[in-house]
Amino acid sequence: MRTIEWDKEKEAVKFIDQTLLPREYKIKECKRVDELIDAIQSLKVRGAPALGVAGAFGVVLACITETTKEAVKTQVARLEKARPTAVNLAYGVNRAFNAAKHGETTAEMKMYALAEANQIAEEDIAVNKKIGEYGSELLDDGDVVLTHCNAGRLACVDWGTALGVIRTAIANGKRIEVISCETRPLNQGSRLTTWELLQDKIPVTLITDSMSATVMRAGKVDKVLVGADRVVKEGVLNKIGTYMHAVVANAHNIPFYVAAPLSSFDIKSSYKEVAIEERSPDELIFLGKEQIAPLDVNVYNPAFDFTPFELIEAVITEKGVVRDVMDFEYKL
Amino acid sequence: MRTIEWDKEKEAVKFIDQTLLPREYKIKECKRVDELIDAIQSLKVRGAPALGVAGAFGVVLACITETTKEAVKTQVARLEKARPTAVNLAYGVNRAFNAAKHGETTAEMKMYALAEANQIAEEDIAVNKKIGEYGSELLDDGDVVLTHCNAGRLACVDWGTALGVIRTAIANGKRIEVISCETRPLNQGSRLTTWELLQDKIPVTLITDSMSATVMRAGKVDKVLVGADRVVKEGVLNKIGTYMHAVVANAHNIPFYVAAPLSSFDIKSSYKEVAIEERSPDELIFLGKEQIAPLDVNVYNPAFDFTPFELIEAVITEKGVVRDVMDFEYKL
Repeated sequence: MRTIEWDKEKEAVKFIDQTLLPREYKIKECKRVDELIDAIQSLKVRGAPALGVAGAFGVVLACITETTKEAVKTQVARLEKARPTAVNLAYGVNRAFNAAKHGETTAEMKMYALAEANQIAEEDIAVNKKIGEYGSELLDDGDVVLTHCNAGRLACVDWGTALGVIRTAIANGKRIEVISCETRPLNQGSRLTTWELLQDKIPVTLITDSMSATVMRAGKVDKVLVGADRVVKEGVLNKIGTYMHAVVANAHNIPFYVAAPLSSFDIKSSYKEVAIEERSPDELIFLGKEQIAPLDVNVYNPAFDFTPFELIEAVITEKGVVRDVMDFEYKL
Repeated sequence: MRTIEWDKEKEAVKFIDQTLLPREYKIKECKRVDELIDAIQSLKVRGAPALGVAGAFGVVLACITETTKEAVKTQVARLEKARPTAVNLAYGVNRAFNAAKHGETTAEMKMYALAEANQIAEEDIAVNKKIGEYGSELLDDGDVVLTHCNAGRLACVDWGTALGVIRTAIANGKRIEVISCETRPLNQGSRLTTWELLQDKIPVTLITDSMSATVMRAGKVDKVLVGADRVVKEGVLNKIGTYMHAVVANAHNIPFYVAAPLSSFDIKSSYKEVAIEERSPDELIFLGKEQIAPLDVNVYNPAFDFTPFELIEAVITEKGVVRDVMDFEYKL
């Protein structure tokens, strides 16, 4: 199935529980906004584009469980703030809620919201495919591409942004190998990226985040390609570690690319205005049930970092490859 | 107790089992070379200076368990190769074995080896204190020092190299805070460095390795200070991730220091001649009992990397702060 979709019979949003991979492939369903917020905050569903679709389906849930427009609005406001950094969540919530407003009753609202949410999901796949086509032009036959976190099928509805580019390049006949950084502290690289690439039989090697400079120095990396949680006027907010890879790629003259749908763009804002989510110290103190640090240690755990455009060769969108964002803004 | 020492009554080498920290503080003892090799390979005892002392005590064990000089020699050869990258292991083994050769019987050999091993342990503490004095001159009151892996008391006999510098600076009245990178894949930073600093009430904040660039960009780091497994003619071999921090520190104009005893120096060799230990894929696929990657994923897991002198502001030794290794070699 898709990473996230609507279950018509159950009137529920269902998705692959990403906290259980790669050990277990399990579909989770939510019928209430509360459950969905919990799933979003615990990263059962994650990835900027997937969060947009989750937010939109969440609006549908609110229209089902609530009996007044006002009550729906309250739920929608909570949903929009479930996680602060990726702009897609608010984008999806707002699109579905604006559609829902055309309804008089909550039943009508639900109908409009669902149509819009499904539309967002379809668009996401189409957008991923477009990003794939534009991005695959940048990859050469034989390239080894280093990636961080998971900007793949599991972060979207189906194809992926960064990994979508790799999928398209391979579909177009290029041989591409991937180096996946494990992506501490939640290991989306080791848990999700390797899993979905192995499913597709795309060659992948897992390394720790701290090995990226070493593999680059050894000449083992041709390009770096990551996703984005939000593109702002000075650069890109993405999973913590992205900035480090960008600095290191730059020092080794390796091009650093970002693949992101326009729904992740917020180029009127500065990165200084965007809240960087700080997550629980437990993410560094425990891994699963395993204690790996003293319980009373002070921890700094931002989930995202900021990479300035100076370090980014280009941003790959569904409207083309953007090398100059100011110029691009003008064209939009 | 010390990190590693000789137990006279039991005729055994005993040490803090570093694989159990921070959950459990447990002393382990070895009476046979086989056990000690296993302890070294499984990192129950680790850290370049501590490995030197472990190797020397291992020679003592061989003199006890074996009945001929030839048999001792065979054990010693195995011990020397237990781990390839840190030069200290071979250094400690060779010093103790060369001392042992003065004995006629294995009982005499044991006596000479033990005296030499204890001498190496005493020297290690004295050397650490000297490194601390020289290095603390480089730290300013109020500095925040980022470190990687564990170059502390737990990596040595008692005081530490990189963390020894911080201890001495604090003993000399400077306020120093530490940022400890967790140091994947075996988390010596989160498990050991934070633990020993908390024991000494030295302020420490734990981050993932991938956050170092972000805290540097935010102006939160004044200096980077790490240990070394081997200093060669072009630079330093140290825990994987060191090179990445050095590149990133350089990009942010933050001085990058290495603290290492002369027993870690091998400046006649090139880094190209030194075997970089590659460890088991399981270190990235599992964390404790927790599976965090597909079982069949390809993994690249070098335990060390190489950082060229161009990125290193100075190497702190027991004979002074070395800014130009060629000049230093001349002085040696």
